[in-house]
Amino acid sequence: MTVKHQATLAKQTAATLTTASTAAKNTALAAIARALDEHRTQIIAANAKDIEAAKAAGMAKGMLDRLTLTETRISDMITGIEEIIALDDPVGEFVSMSTRPNGLTIGKKRTPLGVIAIIYESRPNVTVDAAVLCLKAGNAVILRGGKEAIHTNTALMNVMRDALADTEIPADALHLVADTSRKSAAALMGLVGLVDVLIPRGGAGLIRTVVENAKVPVIETGVGVCHVYVDADADLQMAAEIITNAKCSRPSVCNAAECLLVHKDIAEAFLPQAKAMLDEYKVELRGDEATRRILGDCVVPAGPDDYDTEFYDYILAVKVVASFDDALAHIRRHGTGHSECIVTESYASAQRFLDAVDAAAVYVNASTRFTDGGMFGLGAEIGISTQKMHARGPMGLRELTCTKFVIYGNGQVR
Amino acid sequence: MTVKHQATLAKQTAATLTTASTAAKNTALAAIARALDEHRTQIIAANAKDIEAAKAAGMAKGMLDRLTLTETRISDMITGIEEIIALDDPVGEFVSMSTRPNGLTIGKKRTPLGVIAIIYESRPNVTVDAAVLCLKAGNAVILRGGKEAIHTNTALMNVMRDALADTEIPADALHLVADTSRKSAAALMGLVGLVDVLIPRGGAGLIRTVVENAKVPVIETGVGVCHVYVDADADLQMAAEIITNAKCSRPSVCNAAECLLVHKDIAEAFLPQAKAMLDEYKVELRGDEATRRILGDCVVPAGPDDYDTEFYDYILAVKVVASFDDALAHIRRHGTGHSECIVTESYASAQRFLDAVDAAAVYVNASTRFTDGGMFGLGAEIGISTQKMHARGPMGLRELTCTKFVIYGNGQVR
Repeated sequence: MTVKHQATLAKQTAATLTTASTAAKNTALAAIARALDEHRTQIIAANAKDIEAAKAAGMAKGMLDRLTLTETRISDMITGIEEIIALDDPVGEFVSMSTRPNGLTIGKKRTPLGVIAIIYESRPNVTVDAAVLCLKAGNAVILRGGKEAIHTNTALMNVMRDALADTEIPADALHLVADTSRKSAAALMGLVGLVDVLIPRGGAGLIRTVVENAKVPVIETGVGVCHVYVDADADLQMAAEIITNAKCSRPSVCNAAECLLVHKDIAEAFLPQAKAMLDEYKVELRGDEATRRILGDCVVPAGPDDYDTEFYDYILAVKVVASFDDALAHIRRHGTGHSECIVTESYASAQRFLDAVDAAAVYVNASTRFTDGGMFGLGAEIGISTQKMHARGPMGLRELTCTKFVIYGNGQVR
Repeated sequence: MTVKHQATLAKQTAATLTTASTAAKNTALAAIARALDEHRTQIIAANAKDIEAAKAAGMAKGMLDRLTLTETRISDMITGIEEIIALDDPVGEFVSMSTRPNGLTIGKKRTPLGVIAIIYESRPNVTVDAAVLCLKAGNAVILRGGKEAIHTNTALMNVMRDALADTEIPADALHLVADTSRKSAAALMGLVGLVDVLIPRGGAGLIRTVVENAKVPVIETGVGVCHVYVDADADLQMAAEIITNAKCSRPSVCNAAECLLVHKDIAEAFLPQAKAMLDEYKVELRGDEATRRILGDCVVPAGPDDYDTEFYDYILAVKVVASFDDALAHIRRHGTGHSECIVTESYASAQRFLDAVDAAAVYVNASTRFTDGGMFGLGAEIGISTQKMHARGPMGLRELTCTKFVIYGNGQVR
């Protein structure tokens, strides 16, 4: 089946999903959870084929780990579905409603987006998470995963589609693109009128390709060159804890910090203190001259790209800035609009930073690692938008809907 | 100056506009209004050059009228600015704010989009309206109008930029692209990272070109193949008044109706009654066989494109449908997601129509002509979005902003 044919089926199904009741959607989700539980052996067997191929191809250990499904990970997926069932259905919610002087009653009501396509890389849990989240918000879904996970994804999709057979939600609400070549990705990007929103999830290269080539609307996600700026008025102990957490608690994710900016007035006192904590995680520091003057040759000289790189690793770029404004200017130039943090005890600096920094999440005195749908109280997350249109920051169920105006009249003409 | 250079200046200025106070923005708007008032002669002289060139090129009368600036139209622009000054500033508004169990206080705050680019056709009032609306919401603006209006647009932009010189808002918040060739439009569409949102305003051809070719985020506007469906349970007099208003009160706009769908059970009674009213405006009817059987040969047989055309004229496509579901199916196939109306006395039909029709504005018993920022109470309008992402339907000041998360911590780590 071609991608276009799948999208056409998805579009037709989306029309019926718009009016699906919350109960019908939750029943379908529960059926999916049950089916995953019943087909664990089959799913793990399919995953074993992907793992074998990946090992043969010499896949790196971290990637291999992300690709692997275990009993525990399948249980986590099922728990995830149960959590999504428990969330409020955003569809049907009225954002506003009022009566105009001419008697027209005008409401703005949440409704599904329609057909959501997702292009993603190796983690097979995305296949279930994304499908279930989109479905709960009344959308049809087209998933295009990576070739490394094709056996696993096919097994998961078959189980989910079969599970829908006994529910009110048609199986054609869910599609997996079988072709994992660039051709199928390009086809998805061009389906104007069939795909309402396309969300890329993965590395910077994938995201850039989609943003630059898609003709359908895109929500850009995830690339995070996040900064922690330690102000002249910072509590240095707090600052050291925050940068250590932001860098080291999980370096492979987009909300991890990549760059430490330090006000020159406290650099001499702060940098050794921060280094002592970062050393526990063997963090490699790449610094400017001022940093190296203070910390010595253990700091690698920062190269031209180091202030623009998402390291995904225990590596941290460091720079001493002459002023608050220099920190702002650095973030403006090198930030990716994801998460930015100031550590300060100054009320004025805190408020100015919150106002002036243009990013999805701007923090005072807290780790950037909190930028996450669960941590922000959205319940679950389809990704973190780093664009400004439609959604910005962690996207939950509401961000998978749009609104429409509904107008109750009694014969009004203009 | 190249488009890219203008966009770079706009981006730099946008960073300072983010924190501009409402008072500073309103003062700048008032300065623009005053300057337009003081430079009427100069603006009308520039417009005369465009009119002369347009006449020499044989421009159609309707287009020529849209291009013409008069004293009254300049006064209307000034009144428009005063109305925008009076509107609430959306920037700084908190959409939500709450404290999480870990003590983090997380708010979602409205902030400007950044740099908004608008590609539009001949009406020079857009130059002022769009600039002022975007500026009020804290955005920098790049306007790329049509070549027919270049003298007028240049005069208007010079007056506006000069007016900003004595205010806190930098002149580089506003830019007009001097080159009106396809090349400059293509350049704008490719400015990833400099243009935050691109809004095309004009005919279907322009909008399609922008949607399909832009690499930057786009808000699709305006194409409206709007339907009025007269249900079996309709008040026929009300239905005739609504379709006449929806078609004839201003046929050249996107919220005008293009197609009348009539339930077969009332077609014999309704069609002659509607025709009598539409005849007063000499509306040409293009109908299917059933319509022609009832109304006779005065109805032109509908051709293959007539149900997909935005006529912008006193022409109306007509079709008799066998059922409510047939009407829904027709709208799903031929509608452009703009404005759709049902006329009915049936509670169930009304509710089903509101739920099932996927459009920016869905009406019961009122003319589609109400789809407008002013009529919906938004105060002013930059356009009508027919896409689902970010904004749908009339877009006012709020739709020219995005949100960011601001997080107040006291040392939280994850």
